[in-house]
Amino acid sequence: MLSLIKSPDDLKKLNVSEMAALAAEMRALMIKVVSHNGGHLASSLGAIELIIALHYVFESPEDQIIFDVGHQAYAHKLLTGRVDAFSTLRQLGGLSGFPRRDESPHDVFNTGHSSTSISAALGLAVARDQLKKNNSVVAVIGDGALTGGMALEAINHAGGLQKNLLVVYNDNRMSISPNVGALSQYLSLKLTTQEHIVLRERVKSILERVSPQRGGRLIKRFQRAEESLKSFLISPTSFLAAWGFKYIGPIDGHDLDRLVNALRQVRNLKRPVILHVLTTKGKGFPPAEENPMAFHGLGRSKIAHTHGAPQPPEAPKDRAQDKAQAPAQDKARDQGAHPEALIETPKDQAPDKRSYTDVFGEYLVGAAKENEKINAITAAMSQGTGLDKFFELYPDRAFDVGIAEQHAVAFAAGLAAAGLKPVVAIYSTFLQRAFDQLYHDVALQNLPVILAVDRAGLVGEDGPTHHGGLDLSYLRLMPNFAVMAPKDEFEFTQMLDLALTLTGPSAIRYPRGAVSGRKPTQASPLKVGQAEILREGQDLAILAMGQPVWAAMDAAESLKLKGFEATVINLRFIKPLDKEAILKAAQTGKILTVEENNVQGGLNGAVSEILGRLDLKAPVKVKALGLGDEPVPQASPAQQRALLGLDAPGIEKAALEFFGIIGAPSQEPKREKRIRLTIS
Amino acid sequence: MLSLIKSPDDLKKLNVSEMAALAAEMRALMIKVVSHNGGHLASSLGAIELIIALHYVFESPEDQIIFDVGHQAYAHKLLTGRVDAFSTLRQLGGLSGFPRRDESPHDVFNTGHSSTSISAALGLAVARDQLKKNNSVVAVIGDGALTGGMALEAINHAGGLQKNLLVVYNDNRMSISPNVGALSQYLSLKLTTQEHIVLRERVKSILERVSPQRGGRLIKRFQRAEESLKSFLISPTSFLAAWGFKYIGPIDGHDLDRLVNALRQVRNLKRPVILHVLTTKGKGFPPAEENPMAFHGLGRSKIAHTHGAPQPPEAPKDRAQDKAQAPAQDKARDQGAHPEALIETPKDQAPDKRSYTDVFGEYLVGAAKENEKINAITAAMSQGTGLDKFFELYPDRAFDVGIAEQHAVAFAAGLAAAGLKPVVAIYSTFLQRAFDQLYHDVALQNLPVILAVDRAGLVGEDGPTHHGGLDLSYLRLMPNFAVMAPKDEFEFTQMLDLALTLTGPSAIRYPRGAVSGRKPTQASPLKVGQAEILREGQDLAILAMGQPVWAAMDAAESLKLKGFEATVINLRFIKPLDKEAILKAAQTGKILTVEENNVQGGLNGAVSEILGRLDLKAPVKVKALGLGDEPVPQASPAQQRALLGLDAPGIEKAALEFFGIIGAPSQEPKREKRIRLTIS
Repeated sequence: MLSLIKSPDDLKKLNVSEMAALAAEMRALMIKVVSHNGGHLASSLGAIELIIALHYVFESPEDQIIFDVGHQAYAHKLLTGRVDAFSTLRQLGGLSGFPRRDESPHDVFNTGHSSTSISAALGLAVARDQLKKNNSVVAVIGDGALTGGMALEAINHAGGLQKNLLVVYNDNRMSISPNVGALSQYLSLKLTTQEHIVLRERVKSILERVSPQRGGRLIKRFQRAEESLKSFLISPTSFLAAWGFKYIGPIDGHDLDRLVNALRQVRNLKRPVILHVLTTKGKGFPPAEENPMAFHGLGRSKIAHTHGAPQPPEAPKDRAQDKAQAPAQDKARDQGAHPEALIETPKDQAPDKRSYTDVFGEYLVGAAKENEKINAITAAMSQGTGLDKFFELYPDRAFDVGIAEQHAVAFAAGLAAAGLKPVVAIYSTFLQRAFDQLYHDVALQNLPVILAVDRAGLVGEDGPTHHGGLDLSYLRLMPNFAVMAPKDEFEFTQMLDLALTLTGPSAIRYPRGAVSGRKPTQASPLKVGQAEILREGQDLAILAMGQPVWAAMDAAESLKLKGFEATVINLRFIKPLDKEAILKAAQTGKILTVEENNVQGGLNGAVSEILGRLDLKAPVKVKALGLGDEPVPQASPAQQRALLGLDAPGIEKAALEFFGIIGAPSQEPKREKRIRLTIS
Repeated sequence: MLSLIKSPDDLKKLNVSEMAALAAEMRALMIKVVSHNGGHLASSLGAIELIIALHYVFESPEDQIIFDVGHQAYAHKLLTGRVDAFSTLRQLGGLSGFPRRDESPHDVFNTGHSSTSISAALGLAVARDQLKKNNSVVAVIGDGALTGGMALEAINHAGGLQKNLLVVYNDNRMSISPNVGALSQYLSLKLTTQEHIVLRERVKSILERVSPQRGGRLIKRFQRAEESLKSFLISPTSFLAAWGFKYIGPIDGHDLDRLVNALRQVRNLKRPVILHVLTTKGKGFPPAEENPMAFHGLGRSKIAHTHGAPQPPEAPKDRAQDKAQAPAQDKARDQGAHPEALIETPKDQAPDKRSYTDVFGEYLVGAAKENEKINAITAAMSQGTGLDKFFELYPDRAFDVGIAEQHAVAFAAGLAAAGLKPVVAIYSTFLQRAFDQLYHDVALQNLPVILAVDRAGLVGEDGPTHHGGLDLSYLRLMPNFAVMAPKDEFEFTQMLDLALTLTGPSAIRYPRGAVSGRKPTQASPLKVGQAEILREGQDLAILAMGQPVWAAMDAAESLKLKGFEATVINLRFIKPLDKEAILKAAQTGKILTVEENNVQGGLNGAVSEILGRLDLKAPVKVKALGLGDEPVPQASPAQQRALLGLDAPGIEKAALEFFGIIGAPSQEPKREKRIRLTIS
């Protein structure tokens, strides 16, 4: 039946039981494709009926539906003409795992990061009114995303404007319940004060005396009324009503009949409405229903491995990554999970290697045993950042603040101001949310907050919204910070050791996926701002930090075979920068910078700034490999590195181009005269 | 009496009536000093009794008090040993206008930007418990700051942790009341549904029949109980209770007796408590009470001008700045004022000049008349960004979202996605809050949002937290953006014209204060990415954009008298950058970059990156003037420019140092050989 759905119009021809059958087909297809390509299974399975009902009642693309985060929107893709392309989900050149304006007119606003949908929807609603159109605007937002302050800012604004705007609150009870608990408790207290009890009892006794039967009925109705008021007030969305929204619900988010009726009802209200929909993450796929966290973000073939579904032939045996997301470790933090916290580890990760995330998690557990001042903070990424064990062992020193990166960083600043050692573990792409707090609360006050910046660089199939491609550029702007990247596991622990001794702030960025696995040639001691010279050669200097150092080393080996001698410098720190090392690199006359970061303002930027200040006797030419303005498309990290020339062959090619002899590797390079330089 | 208060201990010796007298003295001193030095008068006047009571009940610095934004904390400074220094408020080398950890042990956390205090206080409270201390932690936050999503993120977290934490909600009813109205309305509706009314009436009639007297009393008590529940629920802080805070209040924030009693009570609660305190902005200074917005952030001698208080001898007649903040324009947006929205225009602004803010406001009003798609958005800075008139004339296209920069930018992205032309006017320093939205919601989607980045560069007396010193660095990282800065009023309108024609996003940054006033030599047309060559000379090239261009021109004139010919290039765009212009500059062999921005990643960074890519035949040396890691201290903008060498004498000096002949201006410079260059 799914193959007949070319657009939402085709959906509208079906009756409810046909739609239920359609949902089953969609479920099966999603499980099949995600088991092969990886993706966000649990949330997309949970939203199938909701999305069917939305497209049944509304007229997309005239009516505009914005999916917060966007990882739950696979059903939306299937209903809007993308069934045939669905097998290309998250692959190079294929469908995006998120809504994309350039993919379909039904995708009205790109999402990826959390908590933006109500702001965007409000903008669309305001524009609709100004342009005298008549369409509906719908934001679909989960309970996790609602803990982001930005969503609350938007609700505040939307309630004030009173535009025709529907917020579908897709509640799978992952995040908000603890707070609801607090409210419930408070109101119970209020309703059980002595005065209330005495009053209630007295009325009750009078009513019973007057007319036992009628009195009893009245008492029951009184109690019901009291309960109904209370249950409304303690609903997780009562605070939305406080901001001027009409609240409807909760309704069963898997009951198509009710969904359709409720949506038809709210469609005509022409005011801010919140429709509270209860859904089950992983709905219809028992393993995912039982353990939605394990099925939130999936690496390729994870399902096959864990649950015995047919294993696609090309899937590697990635036990290590299974382990990293093992169900047994999920229970503690079922609540508050960041929608993106479980970006899968990459397909190209060798099976026997630990990830940087693993190394970080283990290190911090060990360090915390010795140093009671260590605290771990994350923003709904406790598992994704490897902090599970820490949260288990040190619950009093572990803080998952929800999707609230701004607060996470300022909270850590508070801990540091009081003498503790806070370690904030956040993915690079989400740390962007805390730019101002990093500057204003941490850097300007020179507070010893340690940032563990996970998923720095290229992240693979989640694509442009999720790369950690800016952190070197923006962390470098922060006064007092030491900003580092380790080339291997050993250097990572050295950097963590160092960070714990610093009296000011520091950041360590490291990639998604497996550690380099290279053995350090020697235990080179780590000093703040000191680079490591790994090779010396007079033809070219390759400057890198973090894992790209190894691609640079491999390229240098290969260049040697072609007759070129390259200096390779592992900068280790982008701030403070080792000027002596750059001076050394400048002596070759040719510098190639290699970074999994924007070349603007990043490592290339930092090195170029220094070069301008040196008293050079001859010019030094710089070639930069890295990210730029062009978004890096979804693909495996290895494909992405190849696209950007950030792997060994790419670096070698850039070097050969630099020598002006690409395609003619046997040709001798033009040697520059050696230059003497001094730092100004 | 104030002179006897050397620390909070001295305060504790006073009785309530003596404290009232002390408050009067503090008020008088604040009015006097702020009338001379400028500052935040209304909020500081409004918080005097509250701060006296806090220091009377708590034991600072063991007990820790964090002031959100920090501009209301003058009384705190006066009570903690800073009476004698108070006359140096906001002056170079003097007391900061904000709490500063390096100024006093009583300042436990630096503030400046809004909505950070609860996060920081929670961090301090958690640390206290871990370190087994027993002190209190108090966050003092206003109603405006509570609309910032970050404050709500912190409340959510704090309610969950249930630490001993006091949030004093300093409510001067500037921001939250409209929403409270919505809640009140909603609950009234709920309590007047048919079922409730029928039930109530029936019970009433039965009770009356049984025992008219006792029944009547019971009915009244029932009604009272219902009202009491309702009035609690509609309090502006009920949503705080929803998050697990105990709510106490509201109490009169100018009644010392009540304040002291309430604080003593809450001090012993050892849990999250919100104390709701009602204060009057400008309390005790009638002109400020009547018009708190006009007295929020004051330029020097504003009080004298507007209200006839004795005018300090050195204060200039700055009518223009009075006009910009004239009381008559304030009424429309009394609510939602950003704590920093009224940073004063600088003392050194010539009286007859308009500010860039004025030019922007007037331009947008004119453009909006012709183009109905233009919308203006700001984050509680409608007045400070010159949008008053726009808000008056086009209320349907004007949006003040409160202190919510993240939402402001994503909301604008929504407007743009629907085909409108949103113009977001925010101060540079506060735009930092929206870094992720600029990247994720605007830049990646290539949406035609126009950013009017006011207060870019040095802002004067508000000091390090308030400089707009990063925007060139971070806006340059945003794909698809055109990033510009005008050197004068004429170029500013050219850039606004251009921005309105672009199909992608753009940003125009301009400084606080008066337009340059220089007449453009000719109406040089503006093209995206095209620099303007203002002078040509072979000894040195000075690259600048925005107002520093004029200092560069003046320096070049002066250098000419000393025998040096400088090229001066007005880059106009930092993105896209004019490579041909940089090539031209490189031909001199010496490039001096001048920017009111961090030299890291800013104009110096952008130029240095290009230089590395050029095929230079001889090295080009770069010298950078601008902001760096060292915070620029509070001072007048002119003093700050002098400190950094960003004025004409500073640029000249840098050039002479560059030539190696500083102190010997008559000496001939060493001329570099002319070089031919090509762009690679």
